[in-house]
Amino acid sequence: MEDLRIGILGHRFMGRAHSNGWSQTTKFFDPPYKPVLQVACGRDGEDLQKFADRWGWAEIETDWKRVMERDDIDVIDISLPTFMHAETAIAAAEAGKHIFCEKPICNTSEQARAMQAAAEKAGVVHYVNHNYRRCPAVALAKRMIDDGELGEIYHWRGAYQQSWLVNPDHPLDWKLKKDTAGAGPLWDLGSHAVDLAHYLVGDFANITSQGKQFTEERPLASDPSKTGKVEVECAALMMGEFKNGALATIETTRYATGRRNRHTFEIYGSKGALTWDMEDMNRLKFFDNGSPEHLVGFRDILVTERSHEYANAWWPPGHIIGYEHAFVHACNDFMHAIKEGRTLDPDFAEGIRIIEVLEAALKSMETGARVKL
Amino acid sequence: MEDLRIGILGHRFMGRAHSNGWSQTTKFFDPPYKPVLQVACGRDGEDLQKFADRWGWAEIETDWKRVMERDDIDVIDISLPTFMHAETAIAAAEAGKHIFCEKPICNTSEQARAMQAAAEKAGVVHYVNHNYRRCPAVALAKRMIDDGELGEIYHWRGAYQQSWLVNPDHPLDWKLKKDTAGAGPLWDLGSHAVDLAHYLVGDFANITSQGKQFTEERPLASDPSKTGKVEVECAALMMGEFKNGALATIETTRYATGRRNRHTFEIYGSKGALTWDMEDMNRLKFFDNGSPEHLVGFRDILVTERSHEYANAWWPPGHIIGYEHAFVHACNDFMHAIKEGRTLDPDFAEGIRIIEVLEAALKSMETGARVKL
Amino acid sequence: MEDLRIGILGHRFMGRAHSNGWSQTTKFFDPPYKPVLQVACGRDGEDLQKFADRWGWAEIETDWKRVMERDDIDVIDISLPTFMHAETAIAAAEAGKHIFCEKPICNTSEQARAMQAAAEKAGVVHYVNHNYRRCPAVALAKRMIDDGELGEIYHWRGAYQQSWLVNPDHPLDWKLKKDTAGAGPLWDLGSHAVDLAHYLVGDFANITSQGKQFTEERPLASDPSKTGKVEVECAALMMGEFKNGALATIETTRYATGRRNRHTFEIYGSKGALTWDMEDMNRLKFFDNGSPEHLVGFRDILVTERSHEYANAWWPPGHIIGYEHAFVHACNDFMHAIKEGRTLDPDFAEGIRIIEVLEAALKSMETGARVKL
Amino acid sequence: MEDLRIGILGHRFMGRAHSNGWSQTTKFFDPPYKPVLQVACGRDGEDLQKFADRWGWAEIETDWKRVMERDDIDVIDISLPTFMHAETAIAAAEAGKHIFCEKPICNTSEQARAMQAAAEKAGVVHYVNHNYRRCPAVALAKRMIDDGELGEIYHWRGAYQQSWLVNPDHPLDWKLKKDTAGAGPLWDLGSHAVDLAHYLVGDFANITSQGKQFTEERPLASDPSKTGKVEVECAALMMGEFKNGALATIETTRYATGRRNRHTFEIYGSKGALTWDMEDMNRLKFFDNGSPEHLVGFRDILVTERSHEYANAWWPPGHIIGYEHAFVHACNDFMHAIKEGRTLDPDFAEGIRIIEVLEAALKSMETGARVKL
Repeated sequence: MEDLRIGILGHRFMGRAHSNGWSQTTKFFDPPYKPVLQVACGRDGEDLQKFADRWGWAEIETDWKRVMERDDIDVIDISLPTFMHAETAIAAAEAGKHIFCEKPICNTSEQARAMQAAAEKAGVVHYVNHNYRRCPAVALAKRMIDDGELGEIYHWRGAYQQSWLVNPDHPLDWKLKKDTAGAGPLWDLGSHAVDLAHYLVGDFANITSQGKQFTEERPLASDPSKTGKVEVECAALMMGEFKNGALATIETTRYATGRRNRHTFEIYGSKGALTWDMEDMNRLKFFDNGSPEHLVGFRDILVTERSHEYANAWWPPGHIIGYEHAFVHACNDFMHAIKEGRTLDPDFAEGIRIIEVLEAALKSMETGARVKL
Repeated sequence: MEDLRIGILGHRFMGRAHSNGWSQTTKFFDPPYKPVLQVACGRDGEDLQKFADRWGWAEIETDWKRVMERDDIDVIDISLPTFMHAETAIAAAEAGKHIFCEKPICNTSEQARAMQAAAEKAGVVHYVNHNYRRCPAVALAKRMIDDGELGEIYHWRGAYQQSWLVNPDHPLDWKLKKDTAGAGPLWDLGSHAVDLAHYLVGDFANITSQGKQFTEERPLASDPSKTGKVEVECAALMMGEFKNGALATIETTRYATGRRNRHTFEIYGSKGALTWDMEDMNRLKFFDNGSPEHLVGFRDILVTERSHEYANAWWPPGHIIGYEHAFVHACNDFMHAIKEGRTLDPDFAEGIRIIEVLEAALKSMETGARVKL
Repeated sequence: MEDLRIGILGHRFMGRAHSNGWSQTTKFFDPPYKPVLQVACGRDGEDLQKFADRWGWAEIETDWKRVMERDDIDVIDISLPTFMHAETAIAAAEAGKHIFCEKPICNTSEQARAMQAAAEKAGVVHYVNHNYRRCPAVALAKRMIDDGELGEIYHWRGAYQQSWLVNPDHPLDWKLKKDTAGAGPLWDLGSHAVDLAHYLVGDFANITSQGKQFTEERPLASDPSKTGKVEVECAALMMGEFKNGALATIETTRYATGRRNRHTFEIYGSKGALTWDMEDMNRLKFFDNGSPEHLVGFRDILVTERSHEYANAWWPPGHIIGYEHAFVHACNDFMHAIKEGRTLDPDFAEGIRIIEVLEAALKSMETGARVKL
Repeated sequence: MEDLRIGILGHRFMGRAHSNGWSQTTKFFDPPYKPVLQVACGRDGEDLQKFADRWGWAEIETDWKRVMERDDIDVIDISLPTFMHAETAIAAAEAGKHIFCEKPICNTSEQARAMQAAAEKAGVVHYVNHNYRRCPAVALAKRMIDDGELGEIYHWRGAYQQSWLVNPDHPLDWKLKKDTAGAGPLWDLGSHAVDLAHYLVGDFANITSQGKQFTEERPLASDPSKTGKVEVECAALMMGEFKNGALATIETTRYATGRRNRHTFEIYGSKGALTWDMEDMNRLKFFDNGSPEHLVGFRDILVTERSHEYANAWWPPGHIIGYEHAFVHACNDFMHAIKEGRTLDPDFAEGIRIIEVLEAALKSMETGARVKL
């Protein structure tokens, strides 16, 4: 089996999740390459070395440009904060590396178009890691919709709710500054929510949005006795219509007390309905409108059967998997895409479409008016 | 105990629910009056007589104006289609009758204001029967919010979803015509949804809305071989901000396959969160953010304890009640309001405020722009 | 419509539930008789009069024997404590009255056989009010099993759990004395649990049981400063095999903290499975083993459709009913049984079979050995 | 960090789960040793080599006795069928190896006692891998009980339900033969169920049991056109009393249609109650009897908070883990036990106590009588 040598940029939360993703592929799947954790790149050399030791990265590097220059690296894994995606991805493309990029693709559609152009020009595989698509239950939802189990779709009712900003002591970190984060939950959570809506229903025809700042000031991380201005919205609502005529609502917030990571959707169609919630990620609820009337009801599908997407690679039916497994699925699928010489969905082109929706929402948030797409 | 003589207008679905409401009050509660089912009024004399016999209405009448003229009637119970509310309510007020009016109050805020003015001028008790307020779980939610259990409220995520129009054979009935229904689910379901949002969070500062017609034509009820145009929206979304700064989304639809009568809300505040669903109406879910971290979680309160609103009147803890019980609570509370010489919430003034929100939504639905309230 | 004149014995919890049952039949159903609430009988004349006034009983009587002597009474409704059932039922039979008897039938199988013999000899309709059979969801379970949806049945996993004795201050009432209650939860709750097992699976071939006294002494109701001995078991477990080969476990207890009235079963068969819980009585969960593998799951049937048992009489789909409705169903079915000249299940013969199971369990509780039936 | 060299016996389902367990410890935890996957042992050389390549076992070996003779092996990981545990474990002990033994400990209490004696004599660390103890939610349950959150415990209602034998075509494998499996679900599933009951409530004072064979013959694995006799029970019920006075029921079965791996318990105590289900393993339901009456309810604790057992090592709150993670916890805890020179619970002594309960149940199954422990 041929080696596929990876250079990873970033070594925090996503660095861990991606490292585990690459490592576990060969244990549970049969990828077409052997992923080699070649070099880990970050600015803090000491922390970086610990990370490399723990996860088995062979080398470390503190200047990401040098990683691009190496001939022995096949894949650049971008696990950096969003505002660093565009520059690094374009450089990787220019260096002829395949690109596994953490979501959201970047902070503006202009950047995203440049990323996509560079990657296409270089002929490399490009992928934006909206990992929720690769939860078995979400992949099953996609299969069911493609199989026509839902018929014509009328409604998407989505939400991505977290609660970590309910705590007034949470400091003013990079996710709360405009230049680093682009926007608030609209970007961070909304990009995931729009990705699933695109994946399962299709593109939007228009979008309307409303945002809100519940907290104006927060303690500085560097000096909690001082405060600074929160520069992004605390919560963002979206409402819109898909090109196929279905309606959508999407709520994104970091102020939903009691919701730690509730990414949820309800889909209603002429023949059936589906609901899902990331906090209970192994289950898909399905209402089959074609059942005899006295037997209709939402059924609770535990998505761990042999015939379920990805499930057969893990454990026998009834044994659930967790959050990090979707990253393993993504890493494995990415290697197959390289082997087959194609991009992997959601690719940078899809990344552009997601950002365009979010930019339309940002615009609507200011004007209060519906924005066509 | 003094008699309270009631004249009811209408004898269909709501006629039954109201008749049962009046009848059961004296069995389970101790109202200050004995409600006497004096006269039932409707146009179809034969059906009406059967209705009167079944429910114990002493007399029948086919001209509602004659009911108003009677001196022996204390209360007019309006269980008619919405477009008939204003005329009958104003006549009732002018005749000095107390008014128990089915929801929504009427089809325009102009009518609503006339109704309220007439009732206030006459000094009669007026009430709009948004019955869900009087489900024990909703009343408990109100108490908890008033007690400060939720702190500052950030989010209202509501929906009122039904599915009866998913069937393409459903005929073009009065609820699908503009002159009789006013609007589609926005009016019928949205008035309930806005009522609960007002009750539990407060008035709106602005509203944005989007509607959709999934089905353009439906079979005529009179001749199913022909079709006619559906004149109202099939589904309506709302998004807005409350005057206290909380955000809201509300979805109303008759195309939510699998949802028969799902009236639901999620409320997130700084200290806690609540969720409720009418299809599981005896339960209120509560997240107490003040619990020790290792014990936090949404708790499933079965609202049948002795100390729960209305519950003590029925059965021992653990024995649930059903849909019609909220009507009994409303009838009982209405009699107390008469005794105490005050209106009963939601009264006609509140009815006006609800209609104003719906009219703003209708306007936004056309323009795509946010409307201030 | 012919009158059916009822005399009720007892006016506490069950007196209320039965009175409501008779009253509501004509509002929501079309019984073959008009039930007339003729006479209410009890020992406490003052309380009894209040009860009669509230529920519309025309007369009161403090000596139950005089009720039996009246020619104008067609039905005796026995809503008394269990230990009074046998004597009153036999007298009613001898007086030629139809008998609507609250559960459990009585305290010994010997009494039960005497009751059944008397009723059969008199040719009257006899019925034991195990009301849970007439919850729509339970009736649907029965239909589904009869339709073969479950195939061969392997397992019954039942429980009837309450929690009112967790409170050490609960006084030593009649339910805790051997001569009045017969036994503890085994009798009170176990009779219901065995009734449903009989109804849905069949008769038992053998039973093993184990009981326990968690609390030895409780305050006297008459003088809480003194305590008396609890004479019945606090909790009782049963385990056994049905004649058709299925296995069963049943737990009955008043010490299940958090369970107010959780009467629940799980049934597993070769083709499907069902679960139900009285605290969520409008729902039946169904696993259809014949679904395509990727779509299998327990479905949540909201038993309020037009085609569901009893449901059509009440409200549109999605509008739930409550605890007392099963009593209305029982009263209505009882009147049909009279009209058709047959007993109503569970009748006294079934009552005997239930008591025989409970007596076997009591015996096993002492010896620790399996008892054949 | 010192190496800890492991030799694993077995390379099927448990071989995978254990290999993953050892591998992931150093990624997510900080064990006191570096586990080295030194040698994998099995009879089928070709399959074994593939397994070793996939999981990184340095060498393979087809004779387990030779593994014992090696000086460079510190730990023997027994991932073999149950009937091979005793011989291999005793040999490992005699060779001075620490023993990580898959559950159940073995097939007879006599064997178990020999295993324990050998391990104690050798002074090695011994552990039986009842992995469910190390699910965060179960570990939290233990902490809560130790903290007194449940008060005096009254009831344990447990079940371990699977459904793979509902299929009549399932062949007669080693789990269905007496000499290899010992017994049916009583052993395989019941050992887990008893382990959790011991862990959370305590030892049993007596046990009563009942078993059943739903299927007498099954196709031979070697030749499906022929059938052979199923030698073990298809389902087993247990009922008993703990030494502390609490009552228990436990159902174990492979015929619970719709349940893939439902290991569940309900615990009721004087101050609170808990429920858990392995198919939803990240959640613990808790009823706090000390809440104000109007706020009581079962709360759904998502056991992913920083302060929850094991959770901090994985992902942020709200990100669930899966089945295999409990094995990682066990491997990590085992290494700490070695470092600290103590056995790890459940150790072989606990393994004996579990087998004694199961043997008592087997005996009761035959006689139908309660068996003291």
